[in-house]
Amino acid sequence: MERYDIAITGTGPAGISAAITAKIRNKKILLIGDKKLSKKLAAAKEINNYPGFPKVKGSDLAEALTRHLEDLDIQITEARVNAVYAMGKYFSLQTSKGDFEARSVIIASGVMQGKLLEGEEGLVGNGVGYCATCDAPLYKGKDVIIAGYGEEADEETAFLSEIARSVTYFPVFNGEEKTFASNVTVIKEKPESVRREGKRVFLSTGDKEYEADGVFILRESVSPGQLIPGLVTEGPHIKVDRELNTSISGLFACGDIAGKPYQYIKSAGEGNVAALSAVGYLAKQNAAG
Amino acid sequence: MERYDIAITGTGPAGISAAITAKIRNKKILLIGDKKLSKKLAAAKEINNYPGFPKVKGSDLAEALTRHLEDLDIQITEARVNAVYAMGKYFSLQTSKGDFEARSVIIASGVMQGKLLEGEEGLVGNGVGYCATCDAPLYKGKDVIIAGYGEEADEETAFLSEIARSVTYFPVFNGEEKTFASNVTVIKEKPESVRREGKRVFLSTGDKEYEADGVFILRESVSPGQLIPGLVTEGPHIKVDRELNTSISGLFACGDIAGKPYQYIKSAGEGNVAALSAVGYLAKQNAAG
Repeated sequence: MERYDIAITGTGPAGISAAITAKIRNKKILLIGDKKLSKKLAAAKEINNYPGFPKVKGSDLAEALTRHLEDLDIQITEARVNAVYAMGKYFSLQTSKGDFEARSVIIASGVMQGKLLEGEEGLVGNGVGYCATCDAPLYKGKDVIIAGYGEEADEETAFLSEIARSVTYFPVFNGEEKTFASNVTVIKEKPESVRREGKRVFLSTGDKEYEADGVFILRESVSPGQLIPGLVTEGPHIKVDRELNTSISGLFACGDIAGKPYQYIKSAGEGNVAALSAVGYLAKQNAAG
Repeated sequence: MERYDIAITGTGPAGISAAITAKIRNKKILLIGDKKLSKKLAAAKEINNYPGFPKVKGSDLAEALTRHLEDLDIQITEARVNAVYAMGKYFSLQTSKGDFEARSVIIASGVMQGKLLEGEEGLVGNGVGYCATCDAPLYKGKDVIIAGYGEEADEETAFLSEIARSVTYFPVFNGEEKTFASNVTVIKEKPESVRREGKRVFLSTGDKEYEADGVFILRESVSPGQLIPGLVTEGPHIKVDRELNTSISGLFACGDIAGKPYQYIKSAGEGNVAALSAVGYLAKQNAAG
């Protein structure tokens, strides 16, 4: 398998800045994210404090960033990262577009919006999953529940409905209503908690409880502790130092996921530092042989 | 005396970013620096990794930053900061344009170029000074030595020659040769060390030693430990945490002076964080009454 020097997850200002600096330092990079960059950025009406761009619309800043990527011939791989595993000398990234390998990883995925469901954390890998595409085979002919926090969840619901016996789907976002196969039940309530009893998992919306063999929770981003086993976190953030090292050697974090304030220019600055820290890490690794 | 909410020293990307964010947060700010912003930035041939500005000339980025300051009606006070004193509830800034008071201070002055002279540190305030304009009265009718590392030193030499008996001037920079009064001796050697003996101070260039009643060392920026009594430093840098707090409450640092890497976008990002930390500090101070 092709092995990248630096894999960067996220295409907000942090990930883009990291990609730009890593590319300039001649590293073989994999930038995973969204070709539209960042939904938060695109939706920003007016940004006043990204120095050099007075009173800029988010979409205009996004366009300038896209031009910068193009100028350096940096491509974006559109995928969702489901897990990152530290394998010793390299990292394995499990994504919706297959697995990738990289010698170092920069997490710039933004901070997870919203709270975990009550009971969610204890059931991860034990009735609760985050990647329908990955785990679908386990649910052949079974009942699943999907809590979807973004439009991509529609696709995964359609896909799972071909494999599972039934899908109970909670679309928790504003979007067009889709039509699904007859084994899909769409419920417009807000999931609040999950619990397990024997082999069945129960999702409650406060008023009512629904049961299945497994629950998928499909958010725009996964909480970092769940994404990367063994990573030290602080609430919704990854713990980092001034060089943006995390608790795992060769893994760096920057932008919103590395802590407040949530500001575009702070993220861009940290992306640069994380990239240079990764470059330094690779040089040391090379020297060690 | 008018008291500012936040005084910011330095007009590189760190100071400018701090000023922009502080101004947006409605703080009364004092931005001390150079209307040409940063010499290092202006001289940069091509910057590739300030996201949003692909392949930009330093002077063009400086122009964009200037436009941003103008857009927010932020003025630059051209002065050199000679000392910052923590006075308890506020800070006093001693500058070449007089004294200023501010409730909080952000140091974004860039990192000092070059090394201290041998023996310099032990003689500060005891034969070695950094502000000829401030200390001139002490040297009326006496002999002074000036080691000048930037063109501004020419002016201070001319000024001191009106007051002192003699000025021995070491211009350690590339610039036009100036004509001075007859009591000024210009010497084109590189100062290496200083020492004191009795009431006289001796400056050595390796080969030869020169003596006077006082030595002024005029660098583009003063080392942070000398600028701010009591501040914890790490080599040429001010020690900061992730929020860019220094060891002195209400005093923040960002950009090159807060540590490597020396990168424009890193500095801009840190300026933002320092400004928001200062805003938070002021809010807490207000709450405490």
